[in-house]
Amino acid sequence: MKTLIIISHPEIKESSSQQYLLHSIPDDHDLTIHHLEEFYSDTPIDVVAEQKLVAAHDRIIFQFPLYWYSSPALLKQWQDEVLTGDFAYGKKGTQLQNKEFALVLLIGAAKSDYQAGGKELFSMDELTKPFQAMAHKTGMIFLKTFSIYQFVYMTEQEKMTLLIDYQLFVTGDPEQSLLSRENWLLNQLEKTNVTTLGTGNEEILQHVIEMIEENRETIDDLKILLDDMN
Amino acid sequence: MKTLIIISHPEIKESSSQQYLLHSIPDDHDLTIHHLEEFYSDTPIDVVAEQKLVAAHDRIIFQFPLYWYSSPALLKQWQDEVLTGDFAYGKKGTQLQNKEFALVLLIGAAKSDYQAGGKELFSMDELTKPFQAMAHKTGMIFLKTFSIYQFVYMTEQEKMTLLIDYQLFVTGDPEQSLLSRENWLLNQLEKTNVTTLGTGNEEILQHVIEMIEENRETIDDLKILLDDMN
Repeated sequence: MKTLIIISHPEIKESSSQQYLLHSIPDDHDLTIHHLEEFYSDTPIDVVAEQKLVAAHDRIIFQFPLYWYSSPALLKQWQDEVLTGDFAYGKKGTQLQNKEFALVLLIGAAKSDYQAGGKELFSMDELTKPFQAMAHKTGMIFLKTFSIYQFVYMTEQEKMTLLIDYQLFVTGDPEQSLLSRENWLLNQLEKTNVTTLGTGNEEILQHVIEMIEENRETIDDLKILLDDMN
Repeated sequence: MKTLIIISHPEIKESSSQQYLLHSIPDDHDLTIHHLEEFYSDTPIDVVAEQKLVAAHDRIIFQFPLYWYSSPALLKQWQDEVLTGDFAYGKKGTQLQNKEFALVLLIGAAKSDYQAGGKELFSMDELTKPFQAMAHKTGMIFLKTFSIYQFVYMTEQEKMTLLIDYQLFVTGDPEQSLLSRENWLLNQLEKTNVTTLGTGNEEILQHVIEMIEENRETIDDLKILLDDMN
């Protein structure tokens, strides 16, 4: 599965959250990062090139900071110019059909503000209806949104968890079952270049892998036991 | 009440609906038309001038064609740059509080497409949540949206009705009760420059005014009768 992350952020260098995520993205040839402001801050959007890029991927992700409950202006311009009738929708526009689509949102306010009675009034599922409608119109499958609330207030531990969740989101199975999380983690750990690890760390890594595998075996045994009891 | 209509449309000259509405707008010193692309297609947005303009009006209207279930990119940019924290929201940003806010939307698809099971999946009330949230955040009162579906397929009669409704919407009482519609119409008719009317038309005009007033008296009498019966 080839994934395209389209990032829109007018001041990406000043954004600690975007930088954190960008630096965590694995070097994977199935993953393309495309920061719009880097290409089109002063020049017109190259519609043909953008359409080719989108067509060459199976999963399209829009990643941006929530500005006035929507995307920055350049991503909106990108939608309006690139997603034409002969490309993205209608009888002739079938290039996006059956691709997966998701949002990665960086949000300044707290999650609890986004509800009836909260400061922001509506939930993220309500505010992203225009993107859901776009996915529907273009025949794409809308995945669960990956919302990051108040990154700056996160502890180091929370940021580490976020990083793993994010990596899994952009590279792995979107359903994120416990089993698929484990498999993905094991895969990542086994791919780790052990020569870059300091003395002792290689053993720790091996220990972590064994522990996850043992836990899985225990869970599987318990499931079989439960099935027998029924 | 001073009304500011902020229009965003990248190709306004080619839009028959926008031209129709623009030409119908009465010459009223309480009404300001501000077409963003006319000022800011190639130049940066003058944030201070825009904030002054907004602050000087009591009702703010965003008028635009629905592109991907939202506004054209320039209006989004305007929101992101003009509606700053020291102007539009938060403790210091109180300049929009208690103003009225409304959307005038030009929509290419049919109204019946905008519902569950319809081609566009969501209603206009669902798709405009980001604007409702903006009004909420800035302390503005969100009025009913004025949605114009499939202008090109309208009959001349429907366009005339649309025009009156639109004029009432941008200049009159937003609640549009029958009484306020009557008062507004009477006011417009009485302001008509009779010297521009051909022979006979002046009498027709007078006749229309009298008829509306008589109808109103009849309705009022019936209401009194009903009240007495209760």
